[in-house]
Amino acid sequence: MPNYSAPVKEMQFLLHEVLKINKTGIPGYGDLDMGFTGAVLDEAAKVATEVLAPLNPVGDREGCRLENGIVRTPTGFKAAFDSLRKGGWMSLDTPPEFGGQGLPCLMYTVVNEMFVSANMAFNMYQGLTHGATSTLLAHGTEAQKATYVPKMVSADWTGTMNLTEPHCGTDLGLMRTRAKPQADGSYRITGQKIFISAGDHDMAENIVHLVLAKAPGGGEGTRGISLFIVPKVLVNADGSLGARNAVSVGKVEAKMGIHGNATCVMNYDGATGWLLGDLHKGMKAMFTMMNEARLAVALQGYSVAEAAYQNAVAYAKDRLQGRDVMGPQNPTGPADPLIVHPDIRRNLMEQKSFVEGARALIFWGATLLDRARHGDEAADGLISLLIPVMKGFMTDKGFEMAVQAQQVFGGHGYIEEQGMSQFARDARIAMIYEGANGVQALDLVGRKLAADGGKPVMAFFEMVKAECKAHDADPRMAGLVEPLKAASKALQQAAMFFMAEGIKSPNAALAGSYDFMHMMGHVCLGLMWVRIAKAAHAGLDGGSGDRAFLEAKIATARFYMARQLPACAMHLARIESGAETVMALPAEAF
Amino acid sequence: MPNYSAPVKEMQFLLHEVLKINKTGIPGYGDLDMGFTGAVLDEAAKVATEVLAPLNPVGDREGCRLENGIVRTPTGFKAAFDSLRKGGWMSLDTPPEFGGQGLPCLMYTVVNEMFVSANMAFNMYQGLTHGATSTLLAHGTEAQKATYVPKMVSADWTGTMNLTEPHCGTDLGLMRTRAKPQADGSYRITGQKIFISAGDHDMAENIVHLVLAKAPGGGEGTRGISLFIVPKVLVNADGSLGARNAVSVGKVEAKMGIHGNATCVMNYDGATGWLLGDLHKGMKAMFTMMNEARLAVALQGYSVAEAAYQNAVAYAKDRLQGRDVMGPQNPTGPADPLIVHPDIRRNLMEQKSFVEGARALIFWGATLLDRARHGDEAADGLISLLIPVMKGFMTDKGFEMAVQAQQVFGGHGYIEEQGMSQFARDARIAMIYEGANGVQALDLVGRKLAADGGKPVMAFFEMVKAECKAHDADPRMAGLVEPLKAASKALQQAAMFFMAEGIKSPNAALAGSYDFMHMMGHVCLGLMWVRIAKAAHAGLDGGSGDRAFLEAKIATARFYMARQLPACAMHLARIESGAETVMALPAEAF
Repeated sequence: MPNYSAPVKEMQFLLHEVLKINKTGIPGYGDLDMGFTGAVLDEAAKVATEVLAPLNPVGDREGCRLENGIVRTPTGFKAAFDSLRKGGWMSLDTPPEFGGQGLPCLMYTVVNEMFVSANMAFNMYQGLTHGATSTLLAHGTEAQKATYVPKMVSADWTGTMNLTEPHCGTDLGLMRTRAKPQADGSYRITGQKIFISAGDHDMAENIVHLVLAKAPGGGEGTRGISLFIVPKVLVNADGSLGARNAVSVGKVEAKMGIHGNATCVMNYDGATGWLLGDLHKGMKAMFTMMNEARLAVALQGYSVAEAAYQNAVAYAKDRLQGRDVMGPQNPTGPADPLIVHPDIRRNLMEQKSFVEGARALIFWGATLLDRARHGDEAADGLISLLIPVMKGFMTDKGFEMAVQAQQVFGGHGYIEEQGMSQFARDARIAMIYEGANGVQALDLVGRKLAADGGKPVMAFFEMVKAECKAHDADPRMAGLVEPLKAASKALQQAAMFFMAEGIKSPNAALAGSYDFMHMMGHVCLGLMWVRIAKAAHAGLDGGSGDRAFLEAKIATARFYMARQLPACAMHLARIESGAETVMALPAEAF
Repeated sequence: MPNYSAPVKEMQFLLHEVLKINKTGIPGYGDLDMGFTGAVLDEAAKVATEVLAPLNPVGDREGCRLENGIVRTPTGFKAAFDSLRKGGWMSLDTPPEFGGQGLPCLMYTVVNEMFVSANMAFNMYQGLTHGATSTLLAHGTEAQKATYVPKMVSADWTGTMNLTEPHCGTDLGLMRTRAKPQADGSYRITGQKIFISAGDHDMAENIVHLVLAKAPGGGEGTRGISLFIVPKVLVNADGSLGARNAVSVGKVEAKMGIHGNATCVMNYDGATGWLLGDLHKGMKAMFTMMNEARLAVALQGYSVAEAAYQNAVAYAKDRLQGRDVMGPQNPTGPADPLIVHPDIRRNLMEQKSFVEGARALIFWGATLLDRARHGDEAADGLISLLIPVMKGFMTDKGFEMAVQAQQVFGGHGYIEEQGMSQFARDARIAMIYEGANGVQALDLVGRKLAADGGKPVMAFFEMVKAECKAHDADPRMAGLVEPLKAASKALQQAAMFFMAEGIKSPNAALAGSYDFMHMMGHVCLGLMWVRIAKAAHAGLDGGSGDRAFLEAKIATARFYMARQLPACAMHLARIESGAETVMALPAEAF
């Protein structure tokens, strides 16, 4: 069975030495000193390692079953959910007036990493509830908030998001689910939704479904879509539970991974629903939640990779196979541990440099979300630009790295009981849901680059430039700054290519969108590694902290620059080859 | 359920227009004219599509079960195996004197592609038998061959290869299984072997296990290893079956994929075995079979990707989602098919250009194996050099492409009943078994580059150069030849770097071995695409064949050069960064 230990030290280093969070001036951050965050993280670590991680293989093995219309979660899930509920772990960043703890999004994010690493499928029950709660808080009436939010903050009720239908996912304009207005102001919702994560389960007394549907008079396509609150059990005026609503589970899907989470076909047969937000503005309501939701999926990408990496390292140190070509490292043993071999090192360094860089990017992203919540428009523009990069790049890489971690185990990695297969299978979904990664690339190149007259992307380039310039005089940083400069320059060149060619044909930009997303991901991680190395040098200069830890950060930064940033030139060459070879074949030739 | 249709036209084009097999002068190839190969392929296609493909999801869903010491295969496997047996499909290239059909390895390879695409897990039962038969033919005494080979050629008995033990896979010197000589010349074999594919099943009356074990007097490490024949049921002097041997199945592993194949823990408890080949030369006997076995695994890489690609194309043409940014392509429908979108095209073109290039490489590789079998030393050197590239690069890419095919399906790709998950899960094993891909890279850089004084690698570079030079005067080929030249030059530069730096430290070469393997894979596929394009141009010039088909070949070649070969410069940059950043961290820092 795989092990997981929470990287509290890594997290504290990022929060306090790299991001220096309690000196940022972001509202609510002043209290987040080393002692406070340490206490939260230590407690969360206990939950993650003692409660959630042991259930991860159980959830994978047992999966969820539909029995007489009710979904049964795997053994132990209900007790674990109770324990999270009691600890208040699902309400870290919701407002105190609804029973939450009112911490910044950043703290929720940091804790979330641990929970996802420990048990991604389980954590989705609370993650979906968190997203639905945020949507209710942003768009609900006072009465709606009072009815639903406290129960969701306490996790007595959970939540879901219902977008996809059998024939449409990305293209929601094709939606068929209908909402029929009733005399009492409610709606009758009729239609089928699929791929509904945490769609049903036996861990809460009610489930609040947020459902996109077409109400009359909205016109064609996505313009006609509204968002509705459709509780599994109707709520009486006094807040008590009433009759069952006309919503049922058609099926629990058998999936490649995240077996512990119930992915449901939901049938709405004239179910009673209430409009959430403005009529025919359902897409807009969903979109406001998208940054948060996509950040959470990006986080899944590297968090599962972190768990896989930990196990790959343990195996590489333990498994004896072959000899170090430079001379035996374990001369009294029958062979040396795997970790002596250069190609195993390459593999582990790729994992390590990705996971640690990605963590920095997500934590920084969460600070941008917190700034944006407090009205910082520049932060809002920047995070909106970065979100598709984070979601697309980090989930692709997260899966790739989980596969690489599995590879360290050789044949043992392919055997289910080792748990490495589960990491790969679980990580795979993050590339697909919350907008498949090709859609993220389209969002980035087709929308975000040009958003607000290009201000956010220019600001990003300026930020990278400034970071590089700040270290021009520091010879210790030269090996880091030069590759980042080159990568950033290549990225700008790709953006210029899109601008120049995109005028002639949008396909020229779209055919390169996926490469651009990955290229920008590398530049983001390069930027993070410069910041991490800067903090490590500062720590070493100040004589504070753990020297070996700080030196490892600098060495890992150098690895990322030397071994990962060269991908940028490849992506640029692919982009600059244009759309012609991509689009040359007629569809019949495939 | 996924569909599979056998690419007979693609295969015929490669065999007759690209490779021109019956004009090569390779012994046995003279009879392989268009009509003959077409007849074989059409018959094989029927078996693949009608018998094997429908059982692929069945095998995945049901898996194999150990019941009272006997492994039960999935529903329908036994009948399908009978049907292959009756058709003589498992003996295509074994010698007629043992009941085989005496065709070249090439024909076995081409048919094998179809069978793997249709049902990889099922096909492994015959694949392992084929490998064991080859080993017996190469190293058995006349009596051994007479006893075992005809029964294996007829597939009444199947075969296995037993190498791995719980504590060792790659490093077989650590092996603990022992062989104790008996007075009658036989041995008693005692030990545990794991990951034994097709280790037991209910489809044949006997199973011939080839087992590596240590016999007394051989010294330490791999030198003490010998190879033994250990039948599941002992064979009487008259060829009839006698008593059960002391070999049993300890467990059937639950794996990520290839569920239809029984991966067994095999326990040998003083089982009776007979030496195969020379005493203490067991590793050498295994190695002679390695080129064939690794070519077969390389084939699995692209063959599963082919099946996944076919389904991705069908889905991309069928699924309506969004609109072509250049204007509606399906104006009367609610949306355009996925295939209009440039990023879907990019994805499909990556799959197509890989699968078709890989097929050409494997078919060509099989002709080299056939040449080598007939004593051509240059061909033997070349195929030995190329085998780790084929195995490592093509299985990595095969998995990556199966994952990309799955991605085309969005959320539907993650649902098991669609079958796309199975392709990805099945393809994953090919990166691991028959030498994990890191071991292939080590074999390539640590052994094959320097083999025979570097003759094979120099011959390879000369071959690429000559191919480029042959088209210097043809302006239509310029867009193909220049990128290949550049890629080949980069590959040579990497080899020079290894030579120069490797003298100072072997780690400098080993840290770049994986990148080198991929780089060389791209150069090989680039070479294939030049050859394919040349044949396509010849066909167009001659006015023969299907113009659309031939033009698609040229367009796909151009895509590969523009969009895939740029990876070579990235790999070179990574290689030239040396071992320093890879090896900088002490093991404790991970």
